[in-house]
Amino acid sequence: MGDPAGVGPELVLRALADEELKSVCRLVVFGDVALLAQCAKVTGLPPPVGKIVSPAEFLSQGRPEHPVQAENPVQAILVDHAGLIDIDKFVPGRVDPACGAASFAYIQSSIDSVLAHRVAGVTTGPINKEATHAAGISFPGHTEMFAERAASGPWCMMQYSPEVTCTFVTVHCGYAEVPALLTERAVLETIELTSQALKRLHGREPHIAVCGLNPHAGENGLFGNREEQLVIIPAIEQARRLGISVEGPLPPDTAFLPGKRKQVDAIVCMYHDQGHIPLKALAFDTAVNTTLGLKVIRTSVDHGTAFDIAWQGTAIPDSLYAALRLASRLASD
Amino acid sequence: MGDPAGVGPELVLRALADEELKSVCRLVVFGDVALLAQCAKVTGLPPPVGKIVSPAEFLSQGRPEHPVQAENPVQAILVDHAGLIDIDKFVPGRVDPACGAASFAYIQSSIDSVLAHRVAGVTTGPINKEATHAAGISFPGHTEMFAERAASGPWCMMQYSPEVTCTFVTVHCGYAEVPALLTERAVLETIELTSQALKRLHGREPHIAVCGLNPHAGENGLFGNREEQLVIIPAIEQARRLGISVEGPLPPDTAFLPGKRKQVDAIVCMYHDQGHIPLKALAFDTAVNTTLGLKVIRTSVDHGTAFDIAWQGTAIPDSLYAALRLASRLASD
Repeated sequence: MGDPAGVGPELVLRALADEELKSVCRLVVFGDVALLAQCAKVTGLPPPVGKIVSPAEFLSQGRPEHPVQAENPVQAILVDHAGLIDIDKFVPGRVDPACGAASFAYIQSSIDSVLAHRVAGVTTGPINKEATHAAGISFPGHTEMFAERAASGPWCMMQYSPEVTCTFVTVHCGYAEVPALLTERAVLETIELTSQALKRLHGREPHIAVCGLNPHAGENGLFGNREEQLVIIPAIEQARRLGISVEGPLPPDTAFLPGKRKQVDAIVCMYHDQGHIPLKALAFDTAVNTTLGLKVIRTSVDHGTAFDIAWQGTAIPDSLYAALRLASRLASD
Repeated sequence: MGDPAGVGPELVLRALADEELKSVCRLVVFGDVALLAQCAKVTGLPPPVGKIVSPAEFLSQGRPEHPVQAENPVQAILVDHAGLIDIDKFVPGRVDPACGAASFAYIQSSIDSVLAHRVAGVTTGPINKEATHAAGISFPGHTEMFAERAASGPWCMMQYSPEVTCTFVTVHCGYAEVPALLTERAVLETIELTSQALKRLHGREPHIAVCGLNPHAGENGLFGNREEQLVIIPAIEQARRLGISVEGPLPPDTAFLPGKRKQVDAIVCMYHDQGHIPLKALAFDTAVNTTLGLKVIRTSVDHGTAFDIAWQGTAIPDSLYAALRLASRLASD
């Protein structure tokens, strides 16, 4: 459900009422049923319908329904974390430590459930990092929360869209911290994870492009501290020796040219905005965030809590639906 | 003409033969006539036609033809820097110090001419920074060459396109150097230059957006070293006190969303790729590079020398034509 004060609740209400999604997957919502009902009242969206269970009940039911997918659509399940939010004091569209703590509890409950095979995969709604930090939770994002409990080795973020797909060597850190985090090993691992994931999705050997760090990919050492020569090129050469079809380092501003991005299956980015800027400019509402290298399937919307429009019933659910569809596709492999 | 070994010569040949451009401006080419003729022979493009003069002759002719614009189209002028390139030894598509030195000489000659009011503005073709560096020229790009001789105070790069217009606080430096170069004064000056230029182009008060440096614009200090709080926000507040309509710092990946970029006249970027990645992804071949804050008018193509396709006659001249049109528009104000 994401942060209660954001657009997560209304997106969940839309998803629960969507007829087409019922043929894709069976929804299990980790959230707060009273709050969803309140959101339905405020926005005029259909109230939440499904079998209401407590987190403990849901986990204790064992694995009879695994995989929880629906060729034969069945009732949604609402895993109710009641009592974390005091609805009388709750204000939509605001940073609130209680909401941060609640959204973290929903995520942990979903991780419990996917690790216990009670669900086939998890799609996360938008959380607010200020709110989770105010609640004393230090993870910079979902990706890291899942990585802590479900990583089996190296992991990375992937943003998947029909227009362009990006993976990231670094993600949630400050601009200035990136160069020190770029190691040959980190770049190589990201290339490998990318190649494996795209092979699974497309059923053939993919072709991967890798961005440089500096403007013009350093123009052979003219700009920057030779990060391309010292780190990125050695990683690319190592990946080629492993049989991966990979090119680069590309000047970051040409990697996303219309002609170029059509030639490659994915673009390995060195930092958050290198990939997120073109992704959002080109593919807003269609990109799906997923974490590669986990033991479980996890996708996410690619937008934030959008506090400025939360609880108005106007948030567009396309990104959530795309994330649910990709999770289902990965889960049915 | 740009670097002789790049796509500059063939783009010049196309421009000289273009009938529509003749109603926009009178072309004065700074380059090498024998080499242009050779390029025409190799590519099958029309040979260069115009009045051939030496650089010294062109400068010494005083100002009778100023402004050199053509409601009444007249013959093009070819300012011939003969002898800088040995055509027998010349190889297209290759980094060559002689080509670097020649392209620098063409630029200096064009700056002489625009400072002497012999031309109304300059549009620069693509140069190769490896070639200019190999020739012992330390400027990272055209922008800095013009700034050295024609800046009257603060200056900055602007990339102008119908889809999105960006200006830059830093441009041609390594990724890691950016944070130290961001000062409140540099951000404020870029906002002011942007506002002035857009007012001139649109004839009304523009609305400007300013990007943050860190992912999510630092999310209130969670990522990064509070560059937003310490540098960018104070500059924005100062700009508002000067009466400029400005918002930000925006999370860099939301600044270029389709809806957002339509609401603003220009986006102030903190570093090269923050703006160049979306510009090229969205507006390839239509963006024009111009330098704000100069005493003279200067625009440029927004692509490089494209050595891989140089001298094949296939390079697309749209960016050059757009740059010539914007220079003419600015010159006729």
